[in-house]
Amino acid sequence: MNPTQRSAPRVVIALGGNAMTGPDGSAAPTAQRDAIREAAGHIAEVAAAGVEVVLTHGNGPQVGNLLVKNELAAQVVPPVPLDWCVAQTQATIAFTLTDELDAALAARGLSQRTAGLVTRTLVDADDPHFREPSKPVGRFLPKDEAERFIALGQTWEDRGEKGWRRVVASPEPKSVVDAPAIHALAASGFVVVCAGGGGIPVADDGRDGPGLRGVEAVIDKDLTAAILARDLDADTLVIATDVPNVMVDFGTPAARPLGRVTAAELREHAAAGQFARGSMGPKVDAVLRFIDRGGKRAVITSLEHIADAVSGDDAGTVLTA
Amino acid sequence: MNPTQRSAPRVVIALGGNAMTGPDGSAAPTAQRDAIREAAGHIAEVAAAGVEVVLTHGNGPQVGNLLVKNELAAQVVPPVPLDWCVAQTQATIAFTLTDELDAALAARGLSQRTAGLVTRTLVDADDPHFREPSKPVGRFLPKDEAERFIALGQTWEDRGEKGWRRVVASPEPKSVVDAPAIHALAASGFVVVCAGGGGIPVADDGRDGPGLRGVEAVIDKDLTAAILARDLDADTLVIATDVPNVMVDFGTPAARPLGRVTAAELREHAAAGQFARGSMGPKVDAVLRFIDRGGKRAVITSLEHIADAVSGDDAGTVLTA
Repeated sequence: MNPTQRSAPRVVIALGGNAMTGPDGSAAPTAQRDAIREAAGHIAEVAAAGVEVVLTHGNGPQVGNLLVKNELAAQVVPPVPLDWCVAQTQATIAFTLTDELDAALAARGLSQRTAGLVTRTLVDADDPHFREPSKPVGRFLPKDEAERFIALGQTWEDRGEKGWRRVVASPEPKSVVDAPAIHALAASGFVVVCAGGGGIPVADDGRDGPGLRGVEAVIDKDLTAAILARDLDADTLVIATDVPNVMVDFGTPAARPLGRVTAAELREHAAAGQFARGSMGPKVDAVLRFIDRGGKRAVITSLEHIADAVSGDDAGTVLTA
Repeated sequence: MNPTQRSAPRVVIALGGNAMTGPDGSAAPTAQRDAIREAAGHIAEVAAAGVEVVLTHGNGPQVGNLLVKNELAAQVVPPVPLDWCVAQTQATIAFTLTDELDAALAARGLSQRTAGLVTRTLVDADDPHFREPSKPVGRFLPKDEAERFIALGQTWEDRGEKGWRRVVASPEPKSVVDAPAIHALAASGFVVVCAGGGGIPVADDGRDGPGLRGVEAVIDKDLTAAILARDLDADTLVIATDVPNVMVDFGTPAARPLGRVTAAELREHAAAGQFARGSMGPKVDAVLRFIDRGGKRAVITSLEHIADAVSGDDAGTVLTA
């Protein structure tokens, strides 16, 4: 993975949920396809500029739906663990993305095509997050129904008026196990869709002999994107979200978008509590981690601006080393 | 995909259901993993002989389970189409296979690793099978419950005592859309798991603009294996099943295994009705098609014999051009 062997710059783009679900957050198949078709056009523009594109994406609503199916069919067919659900969402989203991206690339006269890889992300079997599950997944249920699952070993939390919700471990991604395969595909000229939902969490816990095996957890997709960009020696990491820039003093008269920033400035804003924990926080964390680990350039912006954000410094919130 | 560029011979191996489900046909996660672990050892032996290995596999019981989940959760979360179910099984099986194969390769001191690709197979939107669905999928239901799904546009058939069962189209595979990505991975030294369940059926039906889109169907995995072996210019196609050889006059005192055979001999046995339509028939059809389309060598044998079958002509039923 020597960058000097590459003729083209390489970018890792992390797509947010808005690129894959309907305006109402619906993960119904037609809503997903329509959203993905829209996103594909913007991504094809990046490829058209001669850039190697590696795409990753979230999967929250999709995993939630699969957990409900598991639950409602449990008396008839065996439920599958959470890591299997993550795998399932990788395939449906990758398959839709490859179809739509291939069409968008062809529409621009490009010969490049797309490949979707089933991707595993290494986590530490001793990660403290396994002892303190905190990531909410799936639907809200009344207390008495939640207790049925608690009896099976799951962790559920009282979320007030909406009811109870399952929480699962969200361990730190250590490396993307399949990064060498992603590199091989990107270097062969493919737009690569990979590490969906942060990757299928695997660990070497020794339970079934030596080797990596799936573990029940979900990984933050933006943190995995930072690891992926590092493992692939990407020139730029782009976190695509639903706003063109990171905002500070949001909701006050002093609200302003961040353009070019230094790591020190961004860290200061983060320390001041400027970024919400469940939304912009992990994205800011991801770009900082990438730069801290040797990355040169990271951008947070909206889908509409990703092509401009890759080619120049005038779009999005741009962090450089 | 010029074979003269390859230093190693290339083999496409199609794994049957017995390599991925429990002895009772169970597709419960633990049963699947145990079966796959067993299969991985045999496949690693093929790789250990210095052969490029491309693996494909069936998914019948797994797709059946997903259809039941769709059905039982339909009031709460949106059901997904059959092509999405195929994609989902590709990811869960590929992920388990890559974990177990990586462990089996490492245990043999090999540096090679495994990659799982989400794979689309092209079918013709006008394939006559779309007008006459014939492939049974999912569970049996009483007539009155089946009628609910018939009203939604599905085709169900009366299967006698067991009840009614859904039948879907099983169109002919024309080509493996992602063959160039599979080739890139194999040429880069990866064991490649791909085209699971015959591949996700896609067609250019013009409905949503130019490009390929998923269609509701399932493709015979052995027929796709033959197309895949051709598209990848494989030296050998291996159809792995639960018997060491194709048998003729099965169940009679004259029963005997077939060793080396010619296409003419095999075709003669097929014409005489020697091979059951739902089991050995499609496998024999697949090896004949591969040879007819320029393939040099195809073998039908059990998992335990695949390494011997790839390295020599003394194991399995061997068809050469």
